[in-house]
Formats: sequence, structure tokens, C-alpha cells
Amino acid sequence: MTLTGQSLIAGQPVAGAGKTTNGFNPATNEPLEPAYTLLTEDQLKTATAAAKEAFPSFSSLDPEAHASFLEAIADNIESIGDELITRAGQETGLPAARLQGERARTTGQLRLFANVVRQGDFRGVRIDPAIPDRTPLPRADIRQRQIPLGPVAVFGASNFPFAFSTAGGDTASALAAGCPVVFKAHNAHPGTSELVGQAITKAVKDSGLHPGVFSLIYGPGASIGQALVADPAIKAVGFTGSQAAGVALMRTAAARPEPIPVYAEMSSLNPVFVFDGALKGDVDALAQQYVTAVTASSGQLCTSPGLLFAPDSELGDKLAAAVGRAIAACTGQTMLTEGIANSWNTGTASLGSADGVELIGQGTPGPTRNAPAPAIFGTGVDQFTSNHVLHEEIFGAASLVIRYTSVDDLLQAANRIEGQLTASLQLTEEDYPTAARLLPVLEQKIGRIIVNGWPTGVEVGHAMVHGGPFPATSDTRTTSVGTLAINRFLRPVAYQNLPPELLPEALQDANPWHLNRRINGDVQLATSYV
Amino acid sequence: MTLTGQSLIAGQPVAGAGKTTNGFNPATNEPLEPAYTLLTEDQLKTATAAAKEAFPSFSSLDPEAHASFLEAIADNIESIGDELITRAGQETGLPAARLQGERARTTGQLRLFANVVRQGDFRGVRIDPAIPDRTPLPRADIRQRQIPLGPVAVFGASNFPFAFSTAGGDTASALAAGCPVVFKAHNAHPGTSELVGQAITKAVKDSGLHPGVFSLIYGPGASIGQALVADPAIKAVGFTGSQAAGVALMRTAAARPEPIPVYAEMSSLNPVFVFDGALKGDVDALAQQYVTAVTASSGQLCTSPGLLFAPDSELGDKLAAAVGRAIAACTGQTMLTEGIANSWNTGTASLGSADGVELIGQGTPGPTRNAPAPAIFGTGVDQFTSNHVLHEEIFGAASLVIRYTSVDDLLQAANRIEGQLTASLQLTEEDYPTAARLLPVLEQKIGRIIVNGWPTGVEVGHAMVHGGPFPATSDTRTTSVGTLAINRFLRPVAYQNLPPELLPEALQDANPWHLNRRINGDVQLATSYV
Repeated sequence: MTLTGQSLIAGQPVAGAGKTTNGFNPATNEPLEPAYTLLTEDQLKTATAAAKEAFPSFSSLDPEAHASFLEAIADNIESIGDELITRAGQETGLPAARLQGERARTTGQLRLFANVVRQGDFRGVRIDPAIPDRTPLPRADIRQRQIPLGPVAVFGASNFPFAFSTAGGDTASALAAGCPVVFKAHNAHPGTSELVGQAITKAVKDSGLHPGVFSLIYGPGASIGQALVADPAIKAVGFTGSQAAGVALMRTAAARPEPIPVYAEMSSLNPVFVFDGALKGDVDALAQQYVTAVTASSGQLCTSPGLLFAPDSELGDKLAAAVGRAIAACTGQTMLTEGIANSWNTGTASLGSADGVELIGQGTPGPTRNAPAPAIFGTGVDQFTSNHVLHEEIFGAASLVIRYTSVDDLLQAANRIEGQLTASLQLTEEDYPTAARLLPVLEQKIGRIIVNGWPTGVEVGHAMVHGGPFPATSDTRTTSVGTLAINRFLRPVAYQNLPPELLPEALQDANPWHLNRRINGDVQLATSYV
Repeated sequence: MTLTGQSLIAGQPVAGAGKTTNGFNPATNEPLEPAYTLLTEDQLKTATAAAKEAFPSFSSLDPEAHASFLEAIADNIESIGDELITRAGQETGLPAARLQGERARTTGQLRLFANVVRQGDFRGVRIDPAIPDRTPLPRADIRQRQIPLGPVAVFGASNFPFAFSTAGGDTASALAAGCPVVFKAHNAHPGTSELVGQAITKAVKDSGLHPGVFSLIYGPGASIGQALVADPAIKAVGFTGSQAAGVALMRTAAARPEPIPVYAEMSSLNPVFVFDGALKGDVDALAQQYVTAVTASSGQLCTSPGLLFAPDSELGDKLAAAVGRAIAACTGQTMLTEGIANSWNTGTASLGSADGVELIGQGTPGPTRNAPAPAIFGTGVDQFTSNHVLHEEIFGAASLVIRYTSVDDLLQAANRIEGQLTASLQLTEEDYPTAARLLPVLEQKIGRIIVNGWPTGVEVGHAMVHGGPFPATSDTRTTSVGTLAINRFLRPVAYQNLPPELLPEALQDANPWHLNRRINGDVQLATSYV
């Protein structure tokens, strides 16, 4: 496919009237062609107006056409072939195997949402039939369904050029809900974004949909992002990125004449809690697993473990020593951008010089530019509970081992952590009583709790929660991964005493879409699925 | 029961260290005893701290104890007997029959939520079982449930001293979700609030719950409300009242270090659309029904119809004339407070003097103070689309008839309305094609759409939506009436590979709570309910 260096607005390439930007190869810091022209705020309005225009028809698509559209996007992404992996590798420094896995996750996610659309439970059908002879007053026939909110603004993340980007989880769940998407590309991988944007645009066209269903825009990060979120046509926002940027979008959305929901996935330290029992097993293996989780994808995962709590005991010392050896054997991998590598250097310098923090071990820098040496630090609970620097996310391959002296000490530390995407517990049966004390504390702060596993690797399924209290996300009531994510883009509408001729398909007695329905409060399963 | 004039914090009467306030009888403008002492912000912290302390045990109650607690509240409210109706009548000017109906709705609502707690679907159980032999990677066991957000601040409304007040819908749904409640009484009915607060407090005690599960506080409206929403222990807010007050709370909640959700139900004009066919029937009956809906409870209902769109035709003239006769026959009823009556006077004066607005008809003032004469005005679509004054809610018995000249004219007007709780359509079969054009526009702006009925009278059921886009509410994704309201106070948590011994009851394989569960994405009904 040819890269045009232009935005794709409602099916048409549009040259930006602003400045230009290039992708950069982080392994060499060399610019990649073509240059991408950046839209002005005026040009942006073409995309949001088209999305608004596309909404009525797209939001009322029948389930089969809707699902097939999502599958066509997946097919088209796969059809790009190796070109996509090559370009994404050039723009992100991520190895081909990781990118191939991420692509499969992305297309699998689109197909999962196609199934969600066909199955239809997200339409939330509730029917309370009329009771004409009820006293003192008859009951009307009332029916409820969930309808899409309207056009959604999605912001691509730097660290997942496929799965949290152009056709990633936010786009897939918004499209599945029936919301047109205006996608703001991350400027670190513009070519990858364009290739995927072309795949979506082709699917829109081939499916005979209104072209405003999808637009891909390039613009100066902060300003065009704020303008997009402030645009009256936009009814919700999906974002994955830094806390500063996410909070700025939250503030803008809340200050609109009509405030709108923002789903920002922002930052997480993903604490790991190691209990005594777990240290009676293979401590070297445990240390190695931890270091692998810390260094995977150069530590640039939302769920990389940034904290590990270990007992201040002889076995705890053994673990720390093993962690030191394991991290020392690691080589740095190229980070996504020079800016991210610089931030990692600043963050680790700040952490390493904090009172009571020492370096447990460090690897070797990688052979490319922007591939700093992974590092693991150590400290105690007192330092952790008293110094806010130790609570700041360092994006990249760095982590902090915190030694606790008692269960009470551990609970105190757990009470001090902010909202997180995940917490992981390493334990054996003897630790259950301790874990049972910790769990209620964690539930108030965590989106996903893992036992004897590591937080990296987020399964895209029905039960997944990739969310959590602020500042992990802006809205703890949701998830940005898994099928529940579709609920973010829906709202309920009730219909009272509508004649059958005016009822939407989802609410008709004949149930033409074969939906499970809640009748008088209890679920009745559809007799058959399409 | 004895009225103490004090707040009820975690089971204990607490005299406020601030000023005092009295209820007033709006029929006479005379103060009612006792005087209520107002809390200071420091005293407020006792209530929020107790709620936080109560949360761990209350949020993990077993369903039967939890449901019985809600039923005990309902029982205790009924046990107060006539004293409650008498006091509420004195404080609000509402007639006994209306208050008796509202009390029944309130206790029915509590019992409905008790059933929701027993049935358990709100726990949102999703299980994706492990697939150990999946390639390239095994799948972990992942289970999801919804857990309560934490302590909730609830603000009582002036116009429903029972159903949207101390033990009203917000309190009932928050308690049903497992969230302790700190309830800020509306200063217009302090005695009614205390009687109901005593009923809840007794249920907390008799059920053996932590006393912090419920507190009732009196304070200076705006300042204590802001302090309550800003308190770090509070995790969500329920509010029914004016747009100005609701938006102020939204701003405070969004500006917190940890932003929290605000569910504010604020203002609605509840447009009614009359089509040609409906005018071929009994026009006098139609006019009378409209006037009844406008004047019910002195027009002080969230769903009072403030706008009626009628054709600019001979039959439309006939309707307007009939409306004029019907409203002229009405007598004013005492409004809730002197302030509300004054606002009504200001609002109708402003509407009546707007360009192109004329008085269609007006009734007679009531025999008490604060009982202004109900009024209905008339205008055209051009005036409506060009003058923002015609879009402002007038709380009380006033409404505006807008004459449209064509379907396009009507659609233009519909496109111009803001978010509303309801829209009502008066039609016959010949109007279906017109209604089908209007419905997609309305769905984007309305929470509940009614055909051949009137918006007043909100059924408390499973399919009800009492919500809608801003400014009708602060959060269009929810409802404040009906069982779906419980979802406002929940968030999902996922559990990965937890041993059975550590899994919460709701997620255990044995399914001890007999819950419907979503397994691999499909609902499996529990074989039996408790």
C-alpha cells in the first residue's frame, strides 16, 4: 500500500494545512518517509461533522451487516501482510514476533466484537409488559434498550501500535456499539496508523456504510486533541497514554457545555506481593519470571510490574539477590521513542537517588540508540509510604523491590498505593490467611487481581478487566479491554406503550434479532441464535 | 417519634455547631418546630469517616442479610404511620393522598431492590475458564464481578419528600449496591427527613450492621454539599435538584484529586408532540389530560410537560382553545416553598413577556399562600428555535404550546431541544410515518419516549429509564429510577487464577449464591433461586 502522508477523513485523503511530522526509527533516530501533514482545527471539523452525519445510519445497522463490517476490518488488516509488521517495527523498535502477536490480538479482538454484535446482549433489552388491571393504577408497557452514545474520539497509544491504536480496543468497542470513530493517530507511528486506517476505510466502503463512520487524523498532539474532545459532535472519548495528557482531556470534557465521558487508561505500577510460602519454592525461577515481566517489550506495557513487595527475611534476601543476578544478565531493548528513553533515564535517576533506595541490579545497554540498561531498585515500606517519588510510574524496564517486615507492614503499604490496573500475589497454601487479609484492601484499588502469575499479557475475553480506580483510569466503572468495554459507549432509552409498528427491532415481541431479554426482571434466553 | 432537630451520624444524634434552620409550612409561611442545628464541615467528617469504616463489612454482606435490611427500612417507614404523612404535608403543602402514594412507591422501591439483591444479576458474574492447552499461550482462569464503589453522598430533592429523599431511589440503589450512604437532607422538609432517617437507623441497628452504613446530615445547603462531594471518603454522588446546583457538584467532583461520578437529575421540559391524527379524536379530553399533567402536584414533578407541540391548523386551534378553557378552570395548589413560588412567578413573567409569546389561559390562585394561578402560554416554532428563554424550565404549573406548520418545522424544533427526561407522542395510526421520522431525533435527546400517554407518573420497574442527555442529567449512561439504577454504584474487578479458597462467594464454582453467570460470553441461568 502507498503511504500518502495525509489524514483520511470520511474516506478521502486530506492534506493537513498545518506543519508536518515524520515517524522516527528509534533504533537510529532517523526520520522515516513520508512526512505527515498535520490538520488544523478547522479541518478537524470535517471529520467530526462526517461522523455526526454517519451516526443515524450506522447506529441502526442490522447485526449481521454490523458484525461483517468488523470482520472485514480484521481481514483487511491481515491482507496488508508483512508490510505492516515491517513499518511498525521501523516506527516502534518492537521486534517482529511481538508485533505479529499484537496484530493477531487486534484482529482477534475485532472478530470477538463481531460475535458480541451478533449475540446482542449489549443491547440490554428489558421488557416490563403492561398490566392493565393493576390497582390502584394500571402498568404501561415499558421496554428498554441500550443505544450508542454518538461519535467517539479515540487516541492511539504509543506502546501498542496495533492493539491500542487505529483499530485497537477503543476503536473496536466503539464501532461495535454503533458509534462512528474519529481516530487521532499517535505521531510516533504515523505510517502504521495510515496502513491500518486504509484497511478500515476500505471496509467502510466495501460494506456500503456512510464514509463518516471512520476518520484518521494527524495533528499537533495536544492542541488538536483538545479541539477534538471539545467538539460538540463528539459524545465520548477513548484514550490510552500518560496521566498528564489523560487528565487534560478529562478537564476539557468536563468543562464542555455538554460534559461527556472520558475513558482514559493512564498509569499503573502493578504491584506484586510475594508471600513467605512462595519463597520456599524455586526462588531463582520466581526472580527470573519477575525480571522477564519487567523487561518484556522494554518494559513499555501498561501492566509491567513496577513494584514488588517481598518479606524482609533470609528468603527475601535470597530473592533480592536472584533478582539482581537476573536483571544483570539483561540487555536493553530499543524503546519506542527518544523522548520515552529520556523520560526513563530521568525517572530512574530520580528513583535511584531517593533516600533509602538502592540499586539491586542493572543490565547492559542495548546495541541501538534509546536502549537503556534495565534496572531494579530496592527499598523498605517506610520509604515507600513516606516518599511520593516512589509512587511515580517509570515507563520502561525499571522496578522497585520493597521489603516488608510483617503482614501489618504490608497492609500499611497496600493501603498507601493509588489506583492500579493490576495486583499480583505470589503465594502457596500457607499464605492464604495473609492473602485473605490483603484482598479486601486490593479490591478497592485494583482492576485485576492475579494469583501466581504476572500482570503482563492481558487476555481479550469476556471476563477481563483492564481498568481500575483513578489514576489508573479516569473511570473505574469500566474496562478498556474485553467485551465489557462496549458498555462504555452505550446509554439506556425506555419506550412506553409504543405500537409494534414503531418499536425498534431489538424490542419487538417477535424478537427478530434473537436476543436474550430481561422480562419483568428475569433473563429469558433466546431460543436460538442467528 | 420524637423529632430531635439533630443530625443522625452513624446511629447517634449529633447537634450541629453551626446555625439553625426550621421547616416552614408553605401554606402559611409559618416556621415548624423543632429548629434543626446545622453541621459544620468538621462535624461532617465524622459521618464520612464512619461510612468508610462501615464499607468493608457492608459491601460483603450475604444477599439474604442485605435484602432483609432493605425490607426492614421499608417496614420501619410504614410503622411511622400517619405521623409521617402529617409532617410531610405540613412541610411541603402536598396533599395526603399524594404523599400516601409516594410513601407506597418508596417502600415498594426498597422491596424491589431487596429482590434485586437476592436475585443477584447486578453482581455481573463473568467466568472465562482456563484453557491450559491453548496455543500459542494457555488461557488463565479469569472471573469478573461487580463490586460497590464505596460510600455514596445522596442529596434529597425538594419535590419528593419520600421517593427522592432520605430513603428514596438514590439511597435505596446505593444501599442495594453495598455502598454506605451519607444523606444530606433538603432543608425544606427536615422533620420528614428525620423521621425517615430514624427508620433507617433503626434498621441498621436491628440488622446488626456497622452504624456508619447510614448518616443523615443537616447543613447549610451549598457549602456542606460541596464539602461532602469533595470528601475523599465519598466515591459517588446522587442528586436531584436544580441544574445550577447539580452542575456545581459536577465541577467539584471533577476537580477532586480523585474525580468521582456524579449522578445528578436536574431539569427537563418533557416535550409533548401532538400529531394530526390525535386531533381527530376527543380534543377536549386531550386538552384536559395535558392540563392535568401540567398541574399535578402543582406542576412540581421532574416530568411535568413544559412544552406541547401542536399543528398550526384548525384542529390545532381547537386544541389550544380547549387547553385555555381547561387551565382556566384550575385552582392553584400550594407550592413546596415560598422560594419556589417566587421562582415560578419570575419564570412565568419572563416567558409571558417574551416576543411572540401569548397567554393561552390561566386559572385562579389557590386559597393558601404560595399557590399561584396555573398558566399556559402559546407561541410558534420560530420563536422557540430563536429564543433561549423558551427553553428554560419553569418549575411549577406552567407550560408552553408551540404551533408547528409542517413536519419539517416540527423536526427543526425537535433538533433544537436539549437533553430531556421524557418526550410524549399523541398520535393515531395515520401519524406513524411522521412519528417514525421524529423518533430517531428524539432518541438522541430523550431518556423515555411515551406514546399516547403523559410523562408524569414514573413506574419503578426493571425497564424504566429516568435519565437522559445533559442537562436532563449529568450522566446519560444511567437512570435514577428503576432497578438499572444500581449499576451507578458498581465497578468491575477481575480475578485471575485465584484458588477456590480465596474466591469471593459470587465467583465460586459451586455458585452458593445461585447467580446467573456469563460463561465464555453466554449467560447460564442458575438452576434455582434462593
